Order: sequence, then structure tokens, then C-alpha cells
Amino acid sequence: MIALITDYGNTHYAGVLKAVIKSIAPSAEVIDIEHGSWSFSAEAGAYVLLSSYGWFPRGTVFVVVVDPGVGSRRRALAVEAGDYFFVGPDNGVLYPAVKEEGLKRAVELSFEKVSALAKPLMKSKRELFLSHTFHGRDLFAPAAALIHEGTSLEMLGDPVQEITTLSLEEGSKVIYVDKFGNVALSLRTLPHADEWRVITEEGIFRVKRGRTFSDVPPGKLVIYVNSAGFVEIAVNQGSAARTLGVKIGDHVALEPMQP
Amino acid sequence: MIALITDYGNTHYAGVLKAVIKSIAPSAEVIDIEHGSWSFSAEAGAYVLLSSYGWFPRGTVFVVVVDPGVGSRRRALAVEAGDYFFVGPDNGVLYPAVKEEGLKRAVELSFEKVSALAKPLMKSKRELFLSHTFHGRDLFAPAAALIHEGTSLEMLGDPVQEITTLSLEEGSKVIYVDKFGNVALSLRTLPHADEWRVITEEGIFRVKRGRTFSDVPPGKLVIYVNSAGFVEIAVNQGSAARTLGVKIGDHVALEPMQP
Amino acid sequence: MIALITDYGNTHYAGVLKAVIKSIAPSAEVIDIEHGSWSFSAEAGAYVLLSSYGWFPRGTVFVVVVDPGVGSRRRALAVEAGDYFFVGPDNGVLYPAVKEEGLKRAVELSFEKVSALAKPLMKSKRELFLSHTFHGRDLFAPAAALIHEGTSLEMLGDPVQEITTLSLEEGSKVIYVDKFGNVALSLRTLPHADEWRVITEEGIFRVKRGRTFSDVPPGKLVIYVNSAGFVEIAVNQGSAARTLGVKIGDHVALEPMQP
Repeated sequence: MIALITDYGNTHYAGVLKAVIKSIAPSAEVIDIEHGSWSFSAEAGAYVLLSSYGWFPRGTVFVVVVDPGVGSRRRALAVEAGDYFFVGPDNGVLYPAVKEEGLKRAVELSFEKVSALAKPLMKSKRELFLSHTFHGRDLFAPAAALIHEGTSLEMLGDPVQEITTLSLEEGSKVIYVDKFGNVALSLRTLPHADEWRVITEEGIFRVKRGRTFSDVPPGKLVIYVNSAGFVEIAVNQGSAARTLGVKIGDHVALEPMQP
Repeated sequence: MIALITDYGNTHYAGVLKAVIKSIAPSAEVIDIEHGSWSFSAEAGAYVLLSSYGWFPRGTVFVVVVDPGVGSRRRALAVEAGDYFFVGPDNGVLYPAVKEEGLKRAVELSFEKVSALAKPLMKSKRELFLSHTFHGRDLFAPAAALIHEGTSLEMLGDPVQEITTLSLEEGSKVIYVDKFGNVALSLRTLPHADEWRVITEEGIFRVKRGRTFSDVPPGKLVIYVNSAGFVEIAVNQGSAARTLGVKIGDHVALEPMQP
Repeated sequence: MIALITDYGNTHYAGVLKAVIKSIAPSAEVIDIEHGSWSFSAEAGAYVLLSSYGWFPRGTVFVVVVDPGVGSRRRALAVEAGDYFFVGPDNGVLYPAVKEEGLKRAVELSFEKVSALAKPLMKSKRELFLSHTFHGRDLFAPAAALIHEGTSLEMLGDPVQEITTLSLEEGSKVIYVDKFGNVALSLRTLPHADEWRVITEEGIFRVKRGRTFSDVPPGKLVIYVNSAGFVEIAVNQGSAARTLGVKIGDHVALEPMQP
């Protein structure tokens, strides 16, 4: 199985990744995880990967294309960690999941090696080439398809000892905003306190601690540890991002209220 | 086959449902019906389900997660009706389709029973637990995967005699707005009249009756019975929702014009 | 394999196409290419098809539903061109891809013929009928499923000698805007010049020529030939469509700057 995370949003670019994968590995099942509306945020991509990869069957190959540096000299990676494989740019987006699983092997993808192996397999009209703007199509998708077919990482590029790091647990900032406006923070524990003061650029907010949205009346703020293990602020049947005036990357200060 | 309707919009939550399903039932085909931008609207979810389920092969399992009450005491259901199966919260979202098919059996899903059956099958790293905010992942997706694998409903929870009702044919209100801005109403028949007066909070509009968009010039309003059998108002190559100033839940009055 | 391009955006309409396809051709794999937020633009649909079809395995059937004339007298087509099949309305949306491949055969789809062949195969509760507003469900999806199952085009309708043409290489206008705000133009070559003057209704812009986004600093405009072979204007980590104030269909004049 091959699973996709990109910041392509609603475009045909993800469809083209699937086309290339199926042209190389016809039996691969391709699952969309998210094609985010957020753009260029390695943190958001890393959060989505970390929140979802562990629910997939062992052996799944994840393609993560959040790649503002496409065409520049950033490295392209394929990584084996735990029982999973990860393919994407070396900008930290893969790091939190790879760290949780434990890095086994990593290689810097070589277009020459990948395309030499992929071209004879391809059942499409077009042939691989390395464009300057679409390495998802030209490099990451073919590499994932080859890994799915059993190609060992060593065949795809030279070994890499370390990959670029990225932390989702530093400071207290917004790392993800979902479609409901729920705001996930770079915090994994919330000390005991029934009420919190939340400080953003927009103002200061009193927020009740709860376990779920409906622990507060509709329209009210609530803070809890979400289903992925991160501290999250929501508004019951409303948007916390709009209420708090925050977006991905913004700083959010939390202070427990005196009882 | 398992088909998904949620109000998750463009997030990874639907991808995680697919991951859990494939971890339990590797041979299941999972089809996205809609991950709506509308949030918390059981009516919209019920309309989407009613409009689409009958086109799927008999035996399909539908997972419908429109669940503002997640984590509260609302019941979680699995239902067999006609030749289809339906899984979702007991807030009425399943009702119109279940009623059309004829209820055969319903159970209140028990996390203990579902997880006891699902855990030995799971090929993922993570194990099921019952979070407070993501029952789609923790309960509905595993139940659907088990039903797909042939588990009888009785193994998943205690029988339920009645499920919460919801009508899509009451009053004259907006039950769905599609991406074009076409406005579906809670009406299934449109009496004969060549022209209608449509009254919303925004104003009073003259609307010609037609059979399709192009029966009126671009930019003009038209009213017809849509392909799902509901009365719908559209603007040819434009947005009726914007023109009429309406959204899901709003009241819309219709009066035939004198000839 | 069957691949879908529509302007249905985020609705259940694409899910219903998949349902109908799977009810007729259970073994078909259905891949979403794009369900565009752009509406009624045959140019955008044609661009998406031309940019993506060649990456799919030979034999793929493409269903392209960008159909502002649904219910009117426009013809419905099934076309064999090169090693691919194309199904959609005869409004030009299929033309650039068909032209690139070379037209082999085309037929005007007949609902009577398609439904007579499809109905005995269908495993769904509902039966085909020809609505006035949803030919994707009623005609295009069943035709694609039948072609996938090996039905010859001649069985689906009468032969057509010519199909409606559409050019993606005429003038200098916007034919596609992606989710990043990158602006693709109806031009396939960009003469040598290091800097360009770009003139839109919004104003006059100096744009550096590059090969990729990161050839200019964040926030700056860059012009290059994109991965699909069209001239494109982007802003590194920003939106060129917003900066230039353009949308699909707008005219954009380009002039090389004096060195």
C-alpha cells in the first residue's frame, strides 16, 4: 500500500502521482491521506504524517510531498523506519514519524538510479524526466512504486547517515488547523487545571478544559488532548482558529487560571 | 465495498478511517462519497447518503460520520436495511436511507465488542482505543470493516428497536448546497406552474421553471426537480445560494406566480 | 483503469460516478484526477486532461465531465485515440488530448444503447434513467464502465467524423490556476529573455525568468515553462494569481524586457 500526503490541495497533481505509481506498480493500492490547503508548511505535513502513519498496515510506503525547495539543492530521501517506508524531501517533514519508529536506513534518491529502474516497468505513454517543479511526479512517486515492488533502498541512491530534524514539541505554537478550525499546538501534555488563559495576538481568552467538544455549550472554547496526543483548542460547533485569530505557525501562550 | 460520508472536509481524518479499515479488512475497497465542507449538519449528511447509496452495489457498507455529539451519550449504530449496511451516530443522519430501504436489524455499537473482534485482525502499529473526539477512527471504521468481513451485527452490540428519525421532506428549507451553489430544498414535488416566486431573507425572486440549467440564459434563476428527486434552485453558470442569500438550514418560501 | 476529471468540486457527485462504475464494472479501478473548483471551464478541463492522461497506463478510460450544456443538445462522446479512451461532452474538453494522441474512432453516445447494455450488469438498487442535470451519472459513467469491460465503441452509439475543437495554444490567456496560485498560460514556448514585463488588468509587473520557484526570493514573481510544457507564472511561496489579479480566462500580455 502507498499513502500520499501533499500540500497540492485540490489539483490534478495528486492524480498524476497516482498515475505514475500505477504505471510502475499496477497492483499497488494508493490511499490519499491529505492534500492540504496549507502550503509549504513542513510542520503541518509532519503532524499529518505522525498522526496517521501508525494506523496503516505495516509495510505501507508513505509519500510526503511538502516541498517549497523543489528544484533547489535540498536532498530527496527514501527512509526505512520501523516497519514502514517514507519518501519525501529532506526538510524535516519525515522526521517526527521516522524518529518515533527508529531510523533503519536512509538514502538520498538519485533520479538516474530511480528512472533507470522505473522506465522499463512503465506502462504509460510518457517517460520519466526530471522537471524543475514537479519532483512528486518525477522522483518521489516512482521511488515509492519501486519500493512497493520490493526494490531495496540501496538501489535507489547513496546512503545517508542523518536526516534533517524537525520538532513538533517545541515552544507553544500552532502546528495544524483542521477543517473545523480546531487548533493543534506543539504540546503533548496539559497540566491539571480546570481553566486556562490562552493568549494570542487577537486577545486573551478563558478556556475550559474538557475531554471533547460537547463538554462546553455550542460556541464556547474548550481545550483538551486530541486523539493524536497533542493539546488542541476547539469551539463546540464553531471555529477556534477564527475565534482565537490564529493560523499555522502562530505563537499561542497558555497559563493555568487560579482556582 | 465500504463507502464514506463525513463532514471532515479536506483533512487527514478520512485518510485515517481508510487506514483503519484496510488494517482490519485488507481486501475492502473504500470509496469516498463526500467529505463535506458543511459541518455538523445531519440533514446535509442524510441528503448525501439518500442521494447516493442506491447507486452502489448491493451489500455496500456505508460509514456516515456527521457527529457533533462525539464523546457525549449519543448512541453509535450499525444498521442493516434492505441490501445495504449503515454505520454512524444515532442523530438521524442514517434515517432517510434506512427508512427507504426498510430497517431489518440495528445494534448499538459497543467499543468493547468491536475492539475485541478487530484487534486480532489489525496489521497496523497502533491499537484501537476509544478517544473522546474521533469515534470515526475508533469505532465506526472498525465496525464497518468487521461487517465487510462478514461479522454479524449481533456480535457488535445490543439490539436497538428504533433509531432516531429525521425528515428531509418537512417544511421548505435548504437541505444541501452543492459546489455550484445549487440549492436543494426539503420538497420532493413541484406543482405545475411556469414561474415561481421564491422568498428568502435576502428578498423576493422570480424563478422560471425548467428541467435543467440551460433552460434559462446564463446568470438567470431556474427551479426544477433534481436528479435525486428533490426540488432545486440553480443559476445557469452561477450560484443560486449566493443570489438567494441562503445556506443549509435556511427557510425558503415558494409561491406559484399567477399566469 | 478509469480516471475522473470533473468540475464537481467537493460534492458527492463524483462518489456517485464511482458507485455507478463499480456497479457495472466491479473490477475497475477508479482514480480521481481532479474535481475542480473552477466551474464550466472547458479550457481548464482540457488542460488538466492534457497534463495528466499520458502518465496513466495505456488503455485507461478517462471520464471528463465539464458540462455546462448538460440537458441541452450538445453531443455526448466516447473516443478512442492512441492507446487511450475518452468519454465526455462534445464541447472541446476532450480535444487537445485526442489531437495529441490521434483520433481513431468516435461515437455519439446513445442513452438507449448504453443503458440497454449496462442495466443487466448493474448490481445496485437503482436503475439507470436519463435525468436532465446529471449525465455524468446517467450516461458518461456507464459508458466508461462498459468500455472498461471491453464493449466496442460502435455498440454505444453512432460514429462521429469530427469532434468539437478547442485550442490551449491560442492568444495569451490564463488556462489554469492551481491551488498555489500558479498561473498557466496558453503558451508553450518562452523566447529567451532574462526578464519579462507582464501586463494584466491589475497593472504591469516585472518578472524574472527562472526554472523553478526557488530561483527567486520568497514573495517574488518568476516565469518558467512548467512540468506540463506550458508557460507559467508563480510567486515563490505565494500566489501569482492574487499578485497579478487574474483568473482563468483572463488575458495576460508578455513582453521581453530590454537587456
